[in-house]
Amino acid sequence: MSGDQVLISGEEVAKHNTRESCWIIVHGKVYDVTEFLPEHPGGMKIILKYAGKDATEEYDPIHPPDAITANLPPEKHLGAIDPGTVTQVVREITSAEVERQERHERKPPLDEILNLHDFEAIARAVMPEKGWAYYSSAADDEITHRENHLAYHRIWFRPRILRDVTAVDWSTTILGQKSSMPVYITATALGKLGHPDGELNLTRAAGKAGVIQMIPTLASCSFDELVDAALEGQTQFMQLYVNKDRAITKRIVQHAEKRGIKGLFITVDAPQLGRREKDMRMKFEDAGSAVQREAGEEVNKNEGAARAISSFIDPGLCWKDIPWFQSITKMPIILKGVQCWEDAVMAAEAGLQGVVLSNHGGRQLDFARSGIEILVEVVSALRERNLFPNPNFQLFVDGGVRRATDVLKAVALGATAVGIGRPFIYSYSAYGQDGVERAIRILNDEFEMNMRLIGAPTIKDVVPSMVDASSIGIHVSNVPEDRLYHANYESMQRSELRNGPLSKL
Amino acid sequence: MSGDQVLISGEEVAKHNTRESCWIIVHGKVYDVTEFLPEHPGGMKIILKYAGKDATEEYDPIHPPDAITANLPPEKHLGAIDPGTVTQVVREITSAEVERQERHERKPPLDEILNLHDFEAIARAVMPEKGWAYYSSAADDEITHRENHLAYHRIWFRPRILRDVTAVDWSTTILGQKSSMPVYITATALGKLGHPDGELNLTRAAGKAGVIQMIPTLASCSFDELVDAALEGQTQFMQLYVNKDRAITKRIVQHAEKRGIKGLFITVDAPQLGRREKDMRMKFEDAGSAVQREAGEEVNKNEGAARAISSFIDPGLCWKDIPWFQSITKMPIILKGVQCWEDAVMAAEAGLQGVVLSNHGGRQLDFARSGIEILVEVVSALRERNLFPNPNFQLFVDGGVRRATDVLKAVALGATAVGIGRPFIYSYSAYGQDGVERAIRILNDEFEMNMRLIGAPTIKDVVPSMVDASSIGIHVSNVPEDRLYHANYESMQRSELRNGPLSKL
Amino acid sequence: MSGDQVLISGEEVAKHNTRESCWIIVHGKVYDVTEFLPEHPGGMKIILKYAGKDATEEYDPIHPPDAITANLPPEKHLGAIDPGTVTQVVREITSAEVERQERHERKPPLDEILNLHDFEAIARAVMPEKGWAYYSSAADDEITHRENHLAYHRIWFRPRILRDVTAVDWSTTILGQKSSMPVYITATALGKLGHPDGELNLTRAAGKAGVIQMIPTLASCSFDELVDAALEGQTQFMQLYVNKDRAITKRIVQHAEKRGIKGLFITVDAPQLGRREKDMRMKFEDAGSAVQREAGEEVNKNEGAARAISSFIDPGLCWKDIPWFQSITKMPIILKGVQCWEDAVMAAEAGLQGVVLSNHGGRQLDFARSGIEILVEVVSALRERNLFPNPNFQLFVDGGVRRATDVLKAVALGATAVGIGRPFIYSYSAYGQDGVERAIRILNDEFEMNMRLIGAPTIKDVVPSMVDASSIGIHVSNVPEDRLYHANYESMQRSELRNGPLSKL
Amino acid sequence: MSGDQVLISGEEVAKHNTRESCWIIVHGKVYDVTEFLPEHPGGMKIILKYAGKDATEEYDPIHPPDAITANLPPEKHLGAIDPGTVTQVVREITSAEVERQERHERKPPLDEILNLHDFEAIARAVMPEKGWAYYSSAADDEITHRENHLAYHRIWFRPRILRDVTAVDWSTTILGQKSSMPVYITATALGKLGHPDGELNLTRAAGKAGVIQMIPTLASCSFDELVDAALEGQTQFMQLYVNKDRAITKRIVQHAEKRGIKGLFITVDAPQLGRREKDMRMKFEDAGSAVQREAGEEVNKNEGAARAISSFIDPGLCWKDIPWFQSITKMPIILKGVQCWEDAVMAAEAGLQGVVLSNHGGRQLDFARSGIEILVEVVSALRERNLFPNPNFQLFVDGGVRRATDVLKAVALGATAVGIGRPFIYSYSAYGQDGVERAIRILNDEFEMNMRLIGAPTIKDVVPSMVDASSIGIHVSNVPEDRLYHANYESMQRSELRNGPLSKL
Repeated sequence: MSGDQVLISGEEVAKHNTRESCWIIVHGKVYDVTEFLPEHPGGMKIILKYAGKDATEEYDPIHPPDAITANLPPEKHLGAIDPGTVTQVVREITSAEVERQERHERKPPLDEILNLHDFEAIARAVMPEKGWAYYSSAADDEITHRENHLAYHRIWFRPRILRDVTAVDWSTTILGQKSSMPVYITATALGKLGHPDGELNLTRAAGKAGVIQMIPTLASCSFDELVDAALEGQTQFMQLYVNKDRAITKRIVQHAEKRGIKGLFITVDAPQLGRREKDMRMKFEDAGSAVQREAGEEVNKNEGAARAISSFIDPGLCWKDIPWFQSITKMPIILKGVQCWEDAVMAAEAGLQGVVLSNHGGRQLDFARSGIEILVEVVSALRERNLFPNPNFQLFVDGGVRRATDVLKAVALGATAVGIGRPFIYSYSAYGQDGVERAIRILNDEFEMNMRLIGAPTIKDVVPSMVDASSIGIHVSNVPEDRLYHANYESMQRSELRNGPLSKL
Repeated sequence: MSGDQVLISGEEVAKHNTRESCWIIVHGKVYDVTEFLPEHPGGMKIILKYAGKDATEEYDPIHPPDAITANLPPEKHLGAIDPGTVTQVVREITSAEVERQERHERKPPLDEILNLHDFEAIARAVMPEKGWAYYSSAADDEITHRENHLAYHRIWFRPRILRDVTAVDWSTTILGQKSSMPVYITATALGKLGHPDGELNLTRAAGKAGVIQMIPTLASCSFDELVDAALEGQTQFMQLYVNKDRAITKRIVQHAEKRGIKGLFITVDAPQLGRREKDMRMKFEDAGSAVQREAGEEVNKNEGAARAISSFIDPGLCWKDIPWFQSITKMPIILKGVQCWEDAVMAAEAGLQGVVLSNHGGRQLDFARSGIEILVEVVSALRERNLFPNPNFQLFVDGGVRRATDVLKAVALGATAVGIGRPFIYSYSAYGQDGVERAIRILNDEFEMNMRLIGAPTIKDVVPSMVDASSIGIHVSNVPEDRLYHANYESMQRSELRNGPLSKL
Repeated sequence: MSGDQVLISGEEVAKHNTRESCWIIVHGKVYDVTEFLPEHPGGMKIILKYAGKDATEEYDPIHPPDAITANLPPEKHLGAIDPGTVTQVVREITSAEVERQERHERKPPLDEILNLHDFEAIARAVMPEKGWAYYSSAADDEITHRENHLAYHRIWFRPRILRDVTAVDWSTTILGQKSSMPVYITATALGKLGHPDGELNLTRAAGKAGVIQMIPTLASCSFDELVDAALEGQTQFMQLYVNKDRAITKRIVQHAEKRGIKGLFITVDAPQLGRREKDMRMKFEDAGSAVQREAGEEVNKNEGAARAISSFIDPGLCWKDIPWFQSITKMPIILKGVQCWEDAVMAAEAGLQGVVLSNHGGRQLDFARSGIEILVEVVSALRERNLFPNPNFQLFVDGGVRRATDVLKAVALGATAVGIGRPFIYSYSAYGQDGVERAIRILNDEFEMNMRLIGAPTIKDVVPSMVDASSIGIHVSNVPEDRLYHANYESMQRSELRNGPLSKL
Repeated sequence: MSGDQVLISGEEVAKHNTRESCWIIVHGKVYDVTEFLPEHPGGMKIILKYAGKDATEEYDPIHPPDAITANLPPEKHLGAIDPGTVTQVVREITSAEVERQERHERKPPLDEILNLHDFEAIARAVMPEKGWAYYSSAADDEITHRENHLAYHRIWFRPRILRDVTAVDWSTTILGQKSSMPVYITATALGKLGHPDGELNLTRAAGKAGVIQMIPTLASCSFDELVDAALEGQTQFMQLYVNKDRAITKRIVQHAEKRGIKGLFITVDAPQLGRREKDMRMKFEDAGSAVQREAGEEVNKNEGAARAISSFIDPGLCWKDIPWFQSITKMPIILKGVQCWEDAVMAAEAGLQGVVLSNHGGRQLDFARSGIEILVEVVSALRERNLFPNPNFQLFVDGGVRRATDVLKAVALGATAVGIGRPFIYSYSAYGQDGVERAIRILNDEFEMNMRLIGAPTIKDVVPSMVDASSIGIHVSNVPEDRLYHANYESMQRSELRNGPLSKL
């Protein structure tokens, strides 16, 4: 590209520090982003903060590595910075950051982490605020986000007894690939917000444990980094956001197939990325003092990290694009984000290899139903049409899973496997790759125990009659509390120790 | 009117400061209200506080501008006050008021307001207590008030995927009038309690945004002020409380039609205005010290602002009045406050143009069902009778709406549009007209996002199968908690940092 | 009786202050209770506290006036005390009592009491602890007690519009007697625990308001006192606990009929009075220091006031006794405490005049269903047998009623009237007779409002289709909360004022 | 065994205090556990703490008396310790322990304990932490543990009136044995964690009260101790964990039969004992400072007491083993832990004498349904097959029972009797044998009251129509709370005292 040969001095760059002329340095290259400012999905203010300076540190966790080169016309790639002539932006270590690092030192040892919830608790305490806000946030009032987990609570087991469960085996096959458990690591974006190694933590731990990782389009690591890090024979899938420019999409897909990716999961629940208010509020706090803000430009669409990275996604993607995908790759194609039986049936009839019943972790449409609830209606509709069971059309669910019992419920109801996302990123946000390995080990322990307890020696023995899902479709809210009545009601009191309450408690 | 030519001195007025002879000044006119005292719906005490004085400031936000002239016989209109001869009542600025104003200064900038809830939070903090009490209060234990919002939570989406949603359009037509969204600003009373410009804030913002405003009978601004403020071509509806004196009603209706009002919404759920205890308690605090109160008259019906302004409403209004309304106007006539399918069918059969399924924002009958729940039974009953769908008989709902997703649920279930009331008055109570504009912009953002996410390019594509409303009619309350059991249950504990808890949280 | 002529000196009485010889003075008479000590249902300790002394003040609120003469053989009635020779027990005024009286001074004026809940709040603050414990307590874990109120929340209105409700009339006829509202004051025991005038407060207020009072067997006032206090033409009913000695019962019933009682309500849900632990714990605190208790006798059955006063009740009462009751009185006979349709049908077939569907205010069997829930099944069963509607067999419910809307729901579902108990005793415990009058006035206000709002000009217009009771039989409990999940979930945050939270709230 | 004759000195033992050579003393015998270290289910660290020392005090409450001799090959039994040559480990009394003992002194007298909940409250305050953690913990998120109790709340009574309940009799017959109530004391492990006399407290109290005790395999007391402590004619059952070595099992079963055991309850819900995280976290705190832990070995499977004691249990136990059990004993055989109707039917068809519908107190599989819910489907399935009612195939439930009303619900639905576990161990953990006796007395009081109140003179009169269990199968969770909405909602306020709140409350 044009300016790649030129060496530019830091002094020169520093002059272009205004709205009228704005240069920034990223990874040792200088870019003129002046014209791009109003188009930047994250708002121009955040770029102007680095006008004339090196923006690499801020850029890295938020953008796919090739974001700037892909979005900026070649003539704006001005050249390489002359090393040694630029002053790094010295990040002020805030007191909040000092406290966070101090908390990091106080993490409990990994063997005290007993379940996937524990990773989240520790991650929340020790990871950077911005990452927590991005990972934990969801759409609107986050009703669906919480429902995703709660829905599993409306499904109860009907375990069988007196079966020989000396040996229990929860390994399975996903899209023809071996998996050590009916779980895969689903795609989540911006992995470096939680840990400097980003999604590599997942690749490495997954390889050791025989678990399949789905590589996200919006990874902080580049696709090839993640494929290169895989072990010999390690299976990886790819999640795809379809670009408005289909040529780019074609290149990505065919590159993935060449690199050995075994399944293409096309996201269909995100024609536009969600408003996540928890994340958006975070940005306000970042955005400098209120006085500055009022004085300056209007921050018109400061809608958090999600919007900032997703403007390329094509909201026009539709059923008639499906044959084209089938024409450019031999990889199994799965639709990720199906939310009613009608679309699942259409996918099966279109000759696709499966669907992920998912609402994008509650991050897109609030009051979308949970994947596990949708699974019940989908299996029923497919059965009626003799499309289930069918090894060539597999069902997956994701969202809200925290325990092996959750997974076993989904399997009993017809899922081939379950995607787990946030718990794995929390595990490495707190403990790096070791955390992911521990998380997988915990799941293994839970599978062993619970396969025995439901009386299923193998995954094939986990059948529909082992669960009672009759309450899955009930969405109730209590009649609002009668506050005056309850204020008057004097609660039952328990027995107390003499001369005072049960002080220990 | 009789005394209009006379100039009366402040000294003269000041002599009539007792129960036996009570004159007051309002907007520069002097009135003898002695005989009216026992009839004043707000109680005589509040008037006696201003006996012999200028009551304008207290009068204004509570009364429609013409309340005093309409209610007092002409011979009690004594004449104009001689300017300069009357001492204004100096309102003592209480410390609570000082604190309120100080909070007002600390409002966050508008761009940090992310949703309609935020307006309510800020309004509650910065608006006058009395306005908050009047707007936020509802009937009895406010169960219906809260149910109105909660009912939407029992409806979940069944979104469709892979539809081209590059362009999404949520504009629609309401009673033949264009609307930029399937939402109108519904009528609410006493708009100046929240902001000195009252309902004008709504008119102006609605005009700019192409949204229809319904002008309330009990507006703080006069009807003509609100019509005059409309832009060329801006659509307005009118809400009507029917007066016992039908001549007055006829005059109001025909004036409205002449001024271009496009729909007449007759309130049928308020033969008597509600007991709103939150508002009533507010009045006690106003009413001076307890000692004074005990010494004085019995405050027998101090039932808040609602009762004070509504004694003219005719509880005798009934079905046989409908043809009369149809005879005096060509405007579409809609019944506001229908609450079961039987009455909706009667309205359709009576040749009316629609019904608003509403419980008056929870302010009238506690344990009335939500509009959205009633909608389901109404559509079903109309369908059975081939009365639905029918562009000449439209269905509306109001109450509890806070998100575009709420609106889309109603539209999917058969509503033409949804009325939003409190959120808009909170938006201007906190930020004036700018607040209303921002509220509308937020709704637009949410519509764009959610139309895409449910897979509906236009409002016509928002169909019944896109929602699951099967739980809408379930009204459950948990079995009361076993307090002794729960007191004994030791909760699960999460992982903690070494040497202490997760201190950040 | 034997010793009635003798005058006994206080010095003589004072010698009999031990377990071996225990005399007490009640209302100026001396009794030898030595042999009665082990039989005293309230335990012997409480009597021994007054051994050799005047026990009148403790005796009065707990016992029906004739309890001692009825239970002690004549030879133990030793005679009259010689006035002036006995030292009154000086009750120590505890600091708790001083504080209580101070709170009593701070009661809000009656016109600030807006609903029946308010009486309970104030009564709890100002009435004696012992009365509060007795009135407010209920069986076991008090689940039924709370369910009684909650059950009404599962019933919602289907109001009708455009009916002429200028005049609304909620008066009715109960067992052929006029009542100003479909409400009667139901029987509750030990009225003097709340106020020195006891049940007389109810009689007097009921007479003024045209409301029917049911006189309880276990009143603190004597039956004749309460009848004497009635106005000319005032209707009273009587509640009956059936004595093991039917001669006593016959005497009571025929005396009642002679005195003009218009309905006999035989309690059938209390063969044994309930264990009310809140009341029982209260007794422990009374019972002196723990050291004393351990040193002394075993407190074997200190089961609160309820057990202390009810040992005479016959647990052998059964259906074959019914004809006998019909033979001794012409009063309408109603069974109070019917709890399933089978027994209601039996009562109708036995020629009785009605049933009260009741669980004794939640004070007897925990997990008994609410009267309003039973009403639905009873009406359905009676209808099937052509026994409903039937003016000669009326249905009543009680328990948990706090609002006129509750009453209207019961009436819509088929009840002739509703019994209200605790709210009335709280109203006089806080404000005496004035409180009861205010409580009735509040109900009248609510009836006027709500009759209008549901579109029912008279009680006959309150029909089944005006309510939706389809959820009445659902008894759910939420799946227990996933504490680890919720501990991790970071709640949505609302907009805040700059530089700090919404400090007002 | 080999070394039994040798006397070994304390000095000699003390030399073997390392991982390489580790001897310990238990009950005066010396054992070489070096090779056993990695196999110890409780982890090697806890043993190494006592390397070269006397471990008896730690060993006793955790292990069945013969655990060490049964698990260690004879050649590792080195001989007897030479008395007087060994220094006892002096247990440091921690400040937590001092505080606990101080709380123990403050226990309320037993007559203030009103219900089974009270025992739990006091036990939690006064018993050793480790015992509380072991007894109170349950599987995963303890959802099933809490559901066990809650499920009873979805069942409501339909009591009958006017039946002669002068005499009520709740005695019954269980597997042909008389029982004073339809309750037995079910098996729970490690009884000495709560009280030094362990399960003997239960044996003695049960004998006095005519209640049947089920002796657990994992008792802290030896089987023969518990049988020896029984009164003449006292009935005992036995709970059996089946050993991988069937010879051991055969010996245990036939010994039990010889000693007069009247029923053999084979546990079938525990092929592997549960992960109980509350118990596991407790162990971390025990395990020394974090620094030590990191420096030392990896604590790889420190999964609490449950895993430590259960490695002998055979996960291969299956239906084909049943005839063998029937061949080695004449005792009635009951399967404990059946959880669906299919297995109950299989048990009946296999000629067994009954099943316990149980989920092991919520300690095994989370989201297993409660026994009482399973009972409904089991009775229905058995009835369809004419297998119910059947005195030769009895149904039992356990889990979550706290009140006689719970028991009566189970009996009404078809259970012969109900097992109660935790409440009894809490009763002796707080008050020893007296506590158990009091607990039984409380149940008797409750049975007397509630048999009268439901109108059932005998257990045979407790029939299905006396309960409404129609909601038993509903497992709902509220739609997640809309936090922003609720943060804004201003609650109803109650009436307050003048000049301040209702300060008493």
